[in-house]
Amino acid sequence: MLQLTIVKVGGKIVEDPDSLEAFLKDFSLIAGYKILVHGGGRSATALAEKLGIKTKMTEGRRITDAEMLKVVTMVYAGLVNKNIVAQLQRIGIDAIGLTGADMNLVISQKRPAKEIDYGFVGDVQGVNAPALLELLSQNYFPVIAPITHDGNGNLLNTNADTIAAETAKAMAFDCNVRLIYCFEKKGVLMNEANEESVIPNLDFELYQQYKSDGIIQGGMIPKLDNAFQAIAAGVKEVIITRASDVNMGKGTFIR
Amino acid sequence: MLQLTIVKVGGKIVEDPDSLEAFLKDFSLIAGYKILVHGGGRSATALAEKLGIKTKMTEGRRITDAEMLKVVTMVYAGLVNKNIVAQLQRIGIDAIGLTGADMNLVISQKRPAKEIDYGFVGDVQGVNAPALLELLSQNYFPVIAPITHDGNGNLLNTNADTIAAETAKAMAFDCNVRLIYCFEKKGVLMNEANEESVIPNLDFELYQQYKSDGIIQGGMIPKLDNAFQAIAAGVKEVIITRASDVNMGKGTFIR
Repeated sequence: MLQLTIVKVGGKIVEDPDSLEAFLKDFSLIAGYKILVHGGGRSATALAEKLGIKTKMTEGRRITDAEMLKVVTMVYAGLVNKNIVAQLQRIGIDAIGLTGADMNLVISQKRPAKEIDYGFVGDVQGVNAPALLELLSQNYFPVIAPITHDGNGNLLNTNADTIAAETAKAMAFDCNVRLIYCFEKKGVLMNEANEESVIPNLDFELYQQYKSDGIIQGGMIPKLDNAFQAIAAGVKEVIITRASDVNMGKGTFIR
Repeated sequence: MLQLTIVKVGGKIVEDPDSLEAFLKDFSLIAGYKILVHGGGRSATALAEKLGIKTKMTEGRRITDAEMLKVVTMVYAGLVNKNIVAQLQRIGIDAIGLTGADMNLVISQKRPAKEIDYGFVGDVQGVNAPALLELLSQNYFPVIAPITHDGNGNLLNTNADTIAAETAKAMAFDCNVRLIYCFEKKGVLMNEANEESVIPNLDFELYQQYKSDGIIQGGMIPKLDNAFQAIAAGVKEVIITRASDVNMGKGTFIR
């Protein structure tokens, strides 16, 4: 089986030239096939502000009206994605920047408006694994922006963590997939106040226990739910770690 | 030999939802392999204005400082490109939106500053024909935004007419290439005041004569110079026509 590493990296890393350069260098050293999924929320918020468009977030998710959809499409699929691609080409990695609309890579459904109307936000319905396999087998390195489409001509703002997890699950039929979530901390912490209190290994039973004990809470829960769903769907390993440790074998290992 | 049609379409058509829809429908009916190269200058100018960035044009070319480069990258590679891709997917065409940085598709050199410093503007040095052939042979339909890169991590704003012509020339080794420039008029006109005075056929000798007679002048000259260079490099046919006639066999035929 092919060895595939899917890395999700957030806006904070990819929007700063120095941290992006360091990250891409580390990332390029990961052996085997690689897919990068990136965010870019800070730049989107900054551009929206300059344009007088108000950013509304609910539970960490961006409410995306038609104007905000234009902003995130420009920032994620244009500015951030193409800058990453150009930097990877510079270091000799033949990157290809894509959204879910390109090659019909990620089909989503507009999230139904219930208590909250998120607007043009997509819930992933399927990932085109054969198209990604084709690119990988030709030694192209996909860089995926968190924009998908509904097949009816609408682009949809889509959570990058979810795209990474759904891509990992779809690729698990044909590859040994490792999914790495890069974030600000060194891993999942036992104690939020202590940066060094990384939980080295987490299985589903321990996760349930830590949740009921209140050790794991807040924004970490949807991330870990995503992770365990990926494991259940055949992904070999999910790692939650710092961007600067992406190639260091450190962080929280979930199996 | 593969039959390949490369179409360049300007911002005016692709930035308006109705004209884009009509154009893509006509375009989808062209037989054989297809590549679309698009502009988007009007949206770029509009976004720049909203951001308080002044648009400076010299001889129809945009002076592109670092801030303007961000604007055109967002608009061309993000907003316009991904909207076209989503609309093509809607009508069942498996489009893939690309810049010259993706797959190292178009390498450019930053234009040297002489009398005019164009800033981050690229002069095309090479087109990666094998990568495009690979995509076409897998029935993907490339949609190319006019952003290229220099291989050193810099994105460059690049004339879409030139990208179309250089792509046509590069593909002419392996394909029977037809290059279609869509613009506002029905073709190259004998008399600018008469919309119906389309010159049906133009060869190099006649072009020289019309130029010296002052019949062909102004902005049409660089377009036709591009066209005849493409013919000299093995492109079978260049057609200059209205977007709405893209599949009608009308316009000015250059051989």
